[in-house]
Amino acid sequence: MEHVSLPPLSRVAICGGTHGNEMSGVYMMREMQKQKVHRTESVSITTVLSNPRAVDACRRYMETDLNRCFTDALLSAPITDSTPYELRRARELNAQLGPKGSPEAVDLLCDLHNTTANMGVCLIFYSLDWITLHIYNYIQSKMTSAPVRAIQMDLPISEAYSLESVGKHGIAIEVGPQPTGVIRADIFNMMKEAVDLTLEWLQKLNSGSTFEGGEVEAYTLMKSVDYPRDPTTNDITAAIHPQLQDNDFKLLKPGDPIFLSFSGETVKHEGEELYPLFVNECAYYEKKIAFHLAKKVTLTFPSISVKKED
Amino acid sequence: MEHVSLPPLSRVAICGGTHGNEMSGVYMMREMQKQKVHRTESVSITTVLSNPRAVDACRRYMETDLNRCFTDALLSAPITDSTPYELRRARELNAQLGPKGSPEAVDLLCDLHNTTANMGVCLIFYSLDWITLHIYNYIQSKMTSAPVRAIQMDLPISEAYSLESVGKHGIAIEVGPQPTGVIRADIFNMMKEAVDLTLEWLQKLNSGSTFEGGEVEAYTLMKSVDYPRDPTTNDITAAIHPQLQDNDFKLLKPGDPIFLSFSGETVKHEGEELYPLFVNECAYYEKKIAFHLAKKVTLTFPSISVKKED
Repeated sequence: MEHVSLPPLSRVAICGGTHGNEMSGVYMMREMQKQKVHRTESVSITTVLSNPRAVDACRRYMETDLNRCFTDALLSAPITDSTPYELRRARELNAQLGPKGSPEAVDLLCDLHNTTANMGVCLIFYSLDWITLHIYNYIQSKMTSAPVRAIQMDLPISEAYSLESVGKHGIAIEVGPQPTGVIRADIFNMMKEAVDLTLEWLQKLNSGSTFEGGEVEAYTLMKSVDYPRDPTTNDITAAIHPQLQDNDFKLLKPGDPIFLSFSGETVKHEGEELYPLFVNECAYYEKKIAFHLAKKVTLTFPSISVKKED
Repeated sequence: MEHVSLPPLSRVAICGGTHGNEMSGVYMMREMQKQKVHRTESVSITTVLSNPRAVDACRRYMETDLNRCFTDALLSAPITDSTPYELRRARELNAQLGPKGSPEAVDLLCDLHNTTANMGVCLIFYSLDWITLHIYNYIQSKMTSAPVRAIQMDLPISEAYSLESVGKHGIAIEVGPQPTGVIRADIFNMMKEAVDLTLEWLQKLNSGSTFEGGEVEAYTLMKSVDYPRDPTTNDITAAIHPQLQDNDFKLLKPGDPIFLSFSGETVKHEGEELYPLFVNECAYYEKKIAFHLAKKVTLTFPSISVKKED
């Protein structure tokens, strides 16, 4: 692959509290704002508490999931009296940090999330983007406190629904396991390390470092699996099986147990070998997702550096 | 101690969903109601989903914490238009399972709870009650899947605020760690085992078994410790220290770290050696409790059996 030269990445937004009960990002924002972290040598940093009402209520969202509001269609739909709070808030964030797809958008948007699943540090990004792949590679090579993996979402950017899609480049940083409404020091520190490494990489890039090309492993989602449910009440009738619980990213083979019903029966995985992700994520019960299944892919990226100024 | 003879304990209530986002009890209730568990040979069993509105909303409570509504004073206060839902619901539960302190009350009320703290199986009961101490001793001697401990609350029954105080005898069964809004099979199975052992013990007692006297260890609460907070915003400025997190019931000594601030400073324990309980319980943030501190006590109980019928 050929070498890529690009302009400096000088405007970064770090967002937390997009889901109001995922506490690591909330406290990261408060701490960065208290410490008045506004810039490194070459990077200006905007910190945003994305959904302040949901943070105050310690809920994921008030009326609708803010992190599903950033498609082109939703950002341009007419506003009426019945438009949910989060859709209005998405417009404000798009105006402040975007507009999405425009030259005014921030160079990089990092959105901070927690999950109740045992995901360690997991970066999520859209399509192929050399910048985000380099950041992922850098964090993975430097981080010692947790395993670092990535999920590549296969969606055109216009249909990308999450906040990080508003930046020219975007990453969601998911860290878990942490219960909603709870802050754990170990999980907070993993998130802080990932953010610090991202800023360090940007600083090095802007200062003239060349980052070599290479390849990384990532996961792409193939399908979702719902809980067994009672056909009448729709209540779930089984929990994640103890052998699957906390085993995100561990290859699931046909015949492996996936659910244990409340009356004691085991349900087994049928179909191909795939990697389970977001196993027993709290917020996915209402989305009818017990876990995702993904395949592993290898992504190749070129060497990059910033363009020399004329 | 002398032998105690008592009437059979034939009417039991098992309650779950007193806190609507503590899912093990919610699914225990649904499963027992589906399986139509109404009695064993000698025990009639009432199953109650205590706070159905909060369960539907997957929140701890709607307007006020239901499990603080069962003092004599609150149960007898006048009802007005502004009386919160949970106070009204407490009256209904008191009418169905009590009235508290009356001969009509159920013989035993077990209320099922989860905590985000690493509490294993923890029974909570008021004052000295031979029945609950025997049940605790029985569960502790039989249970293999988790450590079993007990907290003895030092409150007169009139001031006891929690649902289990409505029964002639009452136990709360706390099981953790489990995030709110999430069901884990391992935690569900611990709770199920504790309930099954309770019913097994009642069955044996009622069938004429004599249970020998003995002694058990329990914990009594000495004080609560709040998080360090920003004096202006009241936001917490530190998380539980990693060396304390998940170490409930492990003796805390002067100088041991208890908090790690978001800027990296360690706060140490000052004062006497005590046992930390409910470390980083989700619902206690709003109650300004980071953890409780308790001392260990030894409780002695007599042998018991049911009275022979005339």
